[in-house]
Amino acid sequence: MNDAPAWIAVDWGTSSLRVWLMDAQGGVIRRHDSDQGMSRLGRADYEPALLDLVGDALPDGTSVPVLVCGMAGSRQGWAEAAYAATPCKPPALSQATRVTTADPRLDVRILPGIKQDRPADVMRGEESQIAGVFARHPDFDGVVCLPGTHCKWVQVSAGEVVSFRTFMTGEIFALLSRHSVLRHSVDDGWDDDAFAESVAHALSRPAGLAADLFTLRAEGLLHGLSPANAHARLSGLLIGLELAGARPYWLGQQVMVVGATGIARAYSNALAAQGLSPLQTDAEDITLAGLTAAFTAHRETTS
Amino acid sequence: MNDAPAWIAVDWGTSSLRVWLMDAQGGVIRRHDSDQGMSRLGRADYEPALLDLVGDALPDGTSVPVLVCGMAGSRQGWAEAAYAATPCKPPALSQATRVTTADPRLDVRILPGIKQDRPADVMRGEESQIAGVFARHPDFDGVVCLPGTHCKWVQVSAGEVVSFRTFMTGEIFALLSRHSVLRHSVDDGWDDDAFAESVAHALSRPAGLAADLFTLRAEGLLHGLSPANAHARLSGLLIGLELAGARPYWLGQQVMVVGATGIARAYSNALAAQGLSPLQTDAEDITLAGLTAAFTAHRETTS
Repeated sequence: MNDAPAWIAVDWGTSSLRVWLMDAQGGVIRRHDSDQGMSRLGRADYEPALLDLVGDALPDGTSVPVLVCGMAGSRQGWAEAAYAATPCKPPALSQATRVTTADPRLDVRILPGIKQDRPADVMRGEESQIAGVFARHPDFDGVVCLPGTHCKWVQVSAGEVVSFRTFMTGEIFALLSRHSVLRHSVDDGWDDDAFAESVAHALSRPAGLAADLFTLRAEGLLHGLSPANAHARLSGLLIGLELAGARPYWLGQQVMVVGATGIARAYSNALAAQGLSPLQTDAEDITLAGLTAAFTAHRETTS
Repeated sequence: MNDAPAWIAVDWGTSSLRVWLMDAQGGVIRRHDSDQGMSRLGRADYEPALLDLVGDALPDGTSVPVLVCGMAGSRQGWAEAAYAATPCKPPALSQATRVTTADPRLDVRILPGIKQDRPADVMRGEESQIAGVFARHPDFDGVVCLPGTHCKWVQVSAGEVVSFRTFMTGEIFALLSRHSVLRHSVDDGWDDDAFAESVAHALSRPAGLAADLFTLRAEGLLHGLSPANAHARLSGLLIGLELAGARPYWLGQQVMVVGATGIARAYSNALAAQGLSPLQTDAEDITLAGLTAAFTAHRETTS
């Protein structure tokens, strides 16, 4: 069967599912995006959700390897994959947890996340993006910044994850902009200057955050602050607070920001304003490169 | 009619409505609590909601003064009552906005809130609690701390509101504990020591907030942090951040905390740990004293 995948790469996060059907030469046969993330699924829903996307491509009489990273490996996910502990290399297929499936055409393995003992921290999925950074930039030593709902700052050296810290900035932003009194003050607009000024403000005065946030509401009521400006300032205050807290990670370091658009671009701009020249890399490319590296590492050690 | 009120005091907030029927000697005939706060009401709903509680006590052929403070005076409320501007005394009845009612037995006036130009800030309702502090403690000069969804720190002197700052701490706490990933990590339990340690931690390292919050989740996953401990630490981190930002308000000042239980007690404990001896005062008593002062001030100037 000409189009049968050699293996399938899966990034299964909290809110999304991304699948790549791979050929034997490392090329992508086809890819799928889906909203069937962990938060929508019970344990029994994972196999049907996957078969929905790839079932038509699975040949009978054999099983296709499926390598999964992300929250599908959490306790509330498809099957719990134990964490590797820092300092460590990003986990490879040989460390993955086998999942029993009803369909014999699937051979599913879930990659471990990485944990850190003190300060306590965990990642699931980002370790595969780190593996992708190593695959694409073999000489990179420094700090990888992975913006998102829970932004991670990861110190890497010699192909290992040395230490990391997770900041809940993205989730706090979403809660404040959609569910707090500030929802009346913001819209989807943006203002680069307002963002930059608020980053600088929060970096120098992080303790005032909860008051500076209310100022956005009050300036809207009293001085007609525009919703676009308020939106950019809300983001700037929260990212500025994060940069103040993450300063040991980026000060004087080579930083690579994963992602080149949207919020990742905002992080890059904020770091540039602090005199850094952050590298940028495409998030999807890095993720697939990392899953490929994890899959290939296994083949090299077992073939 | 023996039980007819001389006037009616109303504290109409975002989520609650409190009404006191007053006799001519300043005594309370009866009181009502209701969940009919501004967030549940359209403009046309206010008069029926009030009549529901007090209609039976209103005599025919005359109109009873009703003095309202709080969010009912906001643009989205019953009728907009313009703000007084700092520095100013808490507004009195003579500055209140008259509301036309369908029922002739009501003579409703809504007290203004107070605004501050720079940094932009607003209050609605707290100004009446400040009036109550002045009524109960005529010699008090210092800082009034009013914990709540939006905690206010108010510098008062010689019977005036000099300046104030609002911190969204309570709203952030509610969003994080109910709607973020931390909802899996906390319950309703409490731990005084964990609270105190987290206040101290955030006071000395406020910039790390967004990472310290995720640590609660990770410690739960990795080290079995108890939900009660996580709950107290979540509160402590946020109040510690606020105390760091509000330091100019409380450092070396006489502070009066409005409220003696729940979150107000937590603020008092946190301030005491910083070497202060905050005064405490009952929130309801202060509110009614403030509305009474506003009502009485009018009578003195017009009689």
